[in-house]
Order: sequence, then structure tokens, then C-alpha cells
Amino acid sequence: MKISSFRVLGLLLCSAVLPSAPVFAQAPPGSSDVASLRAQALGDTVAWDIVEGITTEVGPRPAASPKEALAREWAVAELKSLGFANVRSEPYTMKAWVRGEERAQVVAPFEQPLVIATLGNSGSTGPKGLDAEVVLFSDLAALTAAPDGSLKGKIAYVTHTMKANQDGSGYGPYGQVRRAGPNIAAKKGASAILIRSIGTDSHRVAHTGVTTFEPGVTPIPAAALSIPDADNIERMAKRGKPLRVHLLLTPKILENQPSGNVIAEVPGSDPDAGIIVVAGHLDSWDQGTGAVDDGAGIAIVAAAAKRIMDAGQPRRTIRILWAGAEEVGGDGARAYFARHSSEKHVLAMESDFGADRVWRVNFALPESAKAVQERISAALAPLGIVVGHDKAGDGADIEPLIASGVSGIDLGQEGTRYFDLHHTPDDTLDKIDPAQLAQNVAAWVTVLAVAANAQEPLR
Amino acid sequence: MKISSFRVLGLLLCSAVLPSAPVFAQAPPGSSDVASLRAQALGDTVAWDIVEGITTEVGPRPAASPKEALAREWAVAELKSLGFANVRSEPYTMKAWVRGEERAQVVAPFEQPLVIATLGNSGSTGPKGLDAEVVLFSDLAALTAAPDGSLKGKIAYVTHTMKANQDGSGYGPYGQVRRAGPNIAAKKGASAILIRSIGTDSHRVAHTGVTTFEPGVTPIPAAALSIPDADNIERMAKRGKPLRVHLLLTPKILENQPSGNVIAEVPGSDPDAGIIVVAGHLDSWDQGTGAVDDGAGIAIVAAAAKRIMDAGQPRRTIRILWAGAEEVGGDGARAYFARHSSEKHVLAMESDFGADRVWRVNFALPESAKAVQERISAALAPLGIVVGHDKAGDGADIEPLIASGVSGIDLGQEGTRYFDLHHTPDDTLDKIDPAQLAQNVAAWVTVLAVAANAQEPLR
Repeated sequence: MKISSFRVLGLLLCSAVLPSAPVFAQAPPGSSDVASLRAQALGDTVAWDIVEGITTEVGPRPAASPKEALAREWAVAELKSLGFANVRSEPYTMKAWVRGEERAQVVAPFEQPLVIATLGNSGSTGPKGLDAEVVLFSDLAALTAAPDGSLKGKIAYVTHTMKANQDGSGYGPYGQVRRAGPNIAAKKGASAILIRSIGTDSHRVAHTGVTTFEPGVTPIPAAALSIPDADNIERMAKRGKPLRVHLLLTPKILENQPSGNVIAEVPGSDPDAGIIVVAGHLDSWDQGTGAVDDGAGIAIVAAAAKRIMDAGQPRRTIRILWAGAEEVGGDGARAYFARHSSEKHVLAMESDFGADRVWRVNFALPESAKAVQERISAALAPLGIVVGHDKAGDGADIEPLIASGVSGIDLGQEGTRYFDLHHTPDDTLDKIDPAQLAQNVAAWVTVLAVAANAQEPLR
Repeated sequence: MKISSFRVLGLLLCSAVLPSAPVFAQAPPGSSDVASLRAQALGDTVAWDIVEGITTEVGPRPAASPKEALAREWAVAELKSLGFANVRSEPYTMKAWVRGEERAQVVAPFEQPLVIATLGNSGSTGPKGLDAEVVLFSDLAALTAAPDGSLKGKIAYVTHTMKANQDGSGYGPYGQVRRAGPNIAAKKGASAILIRSIGTDSHRVAHTGVTTFEPGVTPIPAAALSIPDADNIERMAKRGKPLRVHLLLTPKILENQPSGNVIAEVPGSDPDAGIIVVAGHLDSWDQGTGAVDDGAGIAIVAAAAKRIMDAGQPRRTIRILWAGAEEVGGDGARAYFARHSSEKHVLAMESDFGADRVWRVNFALPESAKAVQERISAALAPLGIVVGHDKAGDGADIEPLIASGVSGIDLGQEGTRYFDLHHTPDDTLDKIDPAQLAQNVAAWVTVLAVAANAQEPLR
């Protein structure tokens, strides 16, 4: 439903900005180049080819796995074939979390199998699993309020009321159920924790994602139920009889596994003008094929950079960062920063929120770049993109750069259906609308065309 | 999306037919009773309670399994508590097909796991599985045209182009890929067969369903890929390199397992007026909870029969048939017919196409019942139901009755999203819109109010 309505929108946008006969007075030099690049990018197919390629030829590529290593090989070959300079893989090592088996079923009051996904960093139940009574909590605050020790020998279950919204802002607060819930339950003595998937769909696909235990807290088994399964056990619990679940999770940790970032560049004409980093992440969760998270992102930034490169050398270097290991804590971003922080970065941008259209731009630019910001805003308006007033710089792949004072511009994507798919087996190529993907490329090429050539300092 | 838009429609329908102040001239007696029953039924909650109950308290209930036996116990208790007469379980035995393990992955040219569902009556690969090259066919005709023996040692893969439509009529022809494909592949020497799921969704949930091998043909392993997985291997195959899949399916057959039908009645005042059978099926596939297939159907027919019962004794007996083992070939329907065919059945109706609104009625009534047909058509019109001109009598649970000459009336449900859910893990309660479910009850109670009390012969 949404796909087709947006496809129509994409086509409308497309026809609105296609180059037309010069009936109108010419725009000043520079902005007409931007308009031309923007219009051409609405017909982009490079981004589609990248995301089609990586989902088909690589597929799932979890952090520090052999499949992530294969993705780096694939990425280096792809970026070289697109004509970028200085294409290379930059390795580092890290611990890898490996899923193992995952099974759960309600054993009382009504026997039913459950669809689950183990959370990243979850502990193991051991090969025999565990069988325990479930204590239900209506939200994270209720779990937090449970007396210490009250969960001993029990499985905690935490639900929530996350709803879909356009900017994905629900993920911050509701995502805490996943990020913080297991650590809290472990400290209260729970044997394990189940959560309602952090998602907004209604399919039998559970949402995985990373959780974190404090130093000194032994990780307990932790998994998410698909939303229909969460609904089902909540209905069962309302019958008032004790709820018992059998849970089997056998994840493991492998130390010192290889991971890495892949870098490529469009070298700028003025080395003193600084580097613009455009980032996405190469790794994905293991149950989908990493299409919207984040095959689309790496495709968008590379396709936009290629259009800038093909239009003639920009003033500033554009550096593509396809980061490793974003999903489990941003090891790639930290490795990039450790290696490159002494270089002159002036702007960092990330695409990691799916493939639906860009609807808003936010900035974190200095006063000296006010005119740049105005030119970018004006150039994005024909794509239906509005100016927001939140501070830009969002994104795990660029977080250390932004924290160090690098400027940011965020192209905010329509996120209403993002958490239907995020971290599930459903993250597959068919969820990407080619017209909206191309609108993203047009937005990115617009920003880069202005920012990479601006005479004003960006930082 | 669809759910909420239909919910709005349901409410509009509801307000359109609620009893209003007698501003208009009174309708003739009889039809005003029907109108009143119809209006009240739009507020029905009995059907919801039944489908909520069976999906929560029983869940998956495959034919001739212990869970189907539990469903019969649940059903007898439920139908008794609703006040029906002559509630009983009618047992029979049959062979049971049990799923076992199911795993598949592409091993060349690109290693990727696949989401699959073993087809009912599939053979086993044995515990080690098999690894073979895949030969792709664009449709069933292409498979049928393959030379005998050409598939020896190979896995056949058959795709199709089924699209969603309102009346579900694509399931007949496209469903042949599943129903007939495995037998054809087996006769040509294939080691196994994979098919694109017979469905119209785009989720990582594969569609199971029964297949049939001719006597003398040894069943080969047979499974359906989820549609995103089917897309993926079709894209891989387009790269032109040999496609190899590792497949592990370990289903088994158990002979002489208990199954059964559950019967309940609203006894009529005139034993000579004959019996109206209203049917649905109690069994479900094992991976969902049997909400739309066919928890909704059994709920609708029982809720409508209860409203007739509560309004005063009808002329004809209404017999509820909650059949066993529909999914694997209609053993319940045949067992019912074998036991009851000598009784005077005059009309048979079935609800087995989900829970979305009834949009059309079809008839198979004799000329003598023309006035009945006209009264029913007129009484259904305020629910937005149009008259079709296809021959009624569709439905596995009533097939032997219809074949023996019993009259039929089909209340055709909106089926556009039915094959998104059919035979998948996604067949869960959240897919049912309470307002549309109640509209179904209103349609059924309207038909029964006219048919059960008509003075004209129905057969």
C-alpha cells in the first residue's frame, strides 16, 4: 500500500523537476548545475544495483562474521568498478556474537510455539534450555520497580506500546526495553528475559538487536517475541493462570574476529578544503538480507558520490565510509576515528534509516556556513524536502566524528514503515521502492553538489 | 492499512442499518425481523470471542494431531456453553502427516539461508538432507514439458505470477503448482521440488499446504520458499551460474490417528423441513494459529446460528459442522457425509475464506425457491452485498453434500489479502478486523433468518 502510493509520489516529484525547455529565466550559475544533477539523479539506477547486488550476492552479513568479510571483498570490487579512488578495506578485530539455536514455547496454561529472535549479547540457556514462570511487566519502568531478587528463577517479560511514526523517534525511548531491559532483569535475579519486539508490524518475524550488560553482570538469555506472539501471551496471561515458557537459546561469543571498514574516495581539488564523509554500514543482522538496514544507505551515499565524481572534480574530497559492525555497537566507526581523526574532516553525513523518501533536512553547521545552509535548503525544496530545526549529526557510523566537532547534515527519511522491517527476516530487497531510493540519491547529490564546492568553510 | 480502512467502512455500514425511529412506513412482517437481526448482528462479539478463544487457548491444530483433539474438546465445551443442542464429537481415524525439521540454504553461487515450509504429504530427505543443482521453471506448464528423466538428481523449482484479487480465483490455477507440481517432478525423476509460495504477500513466511502424489509415485521432498526468498533465488539464477541448494526435510506419516468432527444444533420446529448445514473447519495448519483459516469461519457460522436460536425456534434445524482435517483433503467432510447422508439436508453453506467482509452472494437453489433467493438478496443489500451469478456450493467441508444434490448459498468474502496470510505463520488473530467479522455474522444471520423460516422447499 505505502509502496505504491509513494511510487506515485516519486513519479510526480520526478516529473516536477525534470529539465524543461528554457521558458523561465535562467537561475544563477552553480544552482543550475545543482538542479541538473538533482533532476538526473531521480533516474538513478546505481543505488538500486548496489543494494540488489549485496542482498543477492552476499545476503546476511553479521558483524565480524565470515559473511561480513565476504561483504568487504564484494564492496571493494564494487567501489573499484564504479571508478572511485583509494578503495581499500581497513581491518580491525573485535568479539563476535553468534546466534546459535533459538526456540521457545508456552508450556502452560496453553501449549503453543513462539516465534522469537535472540538479542545480540544474550546469554545462553545451555543446550537443554530452561523452563520457568513468566512475570509480565507493562513497561520498562515497571520492571525497574520490581524488588531486587523478586525475579529469582523467573523469566521477565516486558511489553511496550511503540507506534509507527514518521521520524522514527519512538525507537529512542521504546528501544530501551531491548537495550536496557535485560541488564535490569539480570540484576534482579531473573533467569531470562523476553520482550515484545521493538517494532511496529504485525508479522511472525521477531526483531533482534543488541542489548548491553554492565561489567560484572552475567548476561542472561534474552530474546524478543514477534508482535503476534507477544499479543498471544499477553492474552493468555489475562486468563489469570500462571504462564510458563520453555526457552532454548544457544548463542556464543568468539573473541578476536576480523571485521573492517571499506573506504573509497572522490578526491577533491583543494586539499585544504577538508573531507566530507558520507557513511552507511556494511554489516547487517543475520536473519534478513540487510536491504533497508543498511544496504540502501551504502547504495545511496555511493550513488550520490559517483554522480558528483562523474560531473567533474569537486573542491572537497568526498570519502565514502561503508562501516563494519554498526549493529553491535559501532566498532567500525570507532576504528575509523582512531585511524583518521587527525585528518581535516569538515562534514559528516550518514544514511541508515531505510530507503523511503527524504522528507526533511537538519543542519549542524557553523554561522560562517549560513549561506551554504540556505543554498542547500533551497535546492532540496523541489524534492519536497522541508527544513527542520533539530540538531544534525545523528548516526552511529559518524558519531565519533560529530562528537569531535565535525559539522553534520541529516537527510531525514520517511520512517513510518521502517520499524516494520528493522532487524527482522523481512529486511529484504522487495521492501525497497526504486523511485523513493532514487529520490534519496537526488537529495544526497544535491547536498554534496553544494557542500563539496562551497567556498565557505563548513566547520 | 486495509484493516483500518475497512474498519471505517464497517462502522459506516453499522450506522447505516442501525434501527432508527419509525419515520418510514413499516416493512412487511418477517422482513422487519430479518432487518432487526441483521442490524443487531453488526454489534456481534460472539464470533470474536470464539476466534480469540481458539487461537489463544488452542492455537495450531493440525489434522489428526493431539492439538486437533484438544480443539475438539475446546469446541464441545464452547458450543455447549453457547446453548446449542446435541453438541457432540464424531470421531474417525486417518493418517497424519507430521512436519519434522525443515531447513534449506543456497550453497552456490551465493550462500544464503532460505525460509521454507514443507508441503503436506512431502517425502523426507532423511536426516542428512540432500544437496543438488536446481532447475528453474517459469510455470507448471514448463515443468510438465520437461523431458522424462531430465530432472534425475536435480531439484525442480517452479515459480508463478499469482496476484491478489477480490474473489480468490487465482488460487485455483496457481495453486496447481503446489497441488500437482511435486507429483509431476517426482515422475520426471527429480530428487526434490521447491516452489514459490502460493501467496501474494512479501514476507519471510512460507505458505504450506497439501500436495498429492499419485498411487505408485514415491513422494519426493517438497517445500515452498517464502516469496522474498523465491525472488532472491530467481535473481541469483539470472547471474547465469549453476544454483545449488541444500535441503533438509524430515516429515513423517503416522497411520490410524484420531480425528473428528464437532456438531451442534439449533433444532427446528418442523422435522420435515430439513436440515441446513453451516460449516467451517476446526483444524488448521501448524505454523499459524488458524485465525483466518478457519477460526473465523467456525466463529461466524456459530455466532449467526446462536442469534437465530436466541430469536426463537426456527422452522428448519440448523446444524453447525466444525469439520476436522479439512486442510489435508477433507476427511472430516467425507466422514460427516458417510454418517449423515441419509438425513434430509436441504441447504449447505460454508465459511472458509478469512474474516474480511462479505461482498457477494451466489446461489444454487431450485426454481421453487426463487422467491427465497429474492428475499435473501434484498435483505443482504443493506450490508453492501451484491448478487453474483456463479454457481454456489464452494467449500471442502460441504463438498460431498453439494455433490449429492443439496442446495448451496455462498457468502463470498473480500479476499484481496487472504493469500497474504493463508497457510503461513502469519495466520494470527491480529489479522482479523472485529467490524468486518461482525459484518460476516450479519450476512450469515440474514441468510439463515430467511432460509430457516421459509415456507418454500429449498431443495
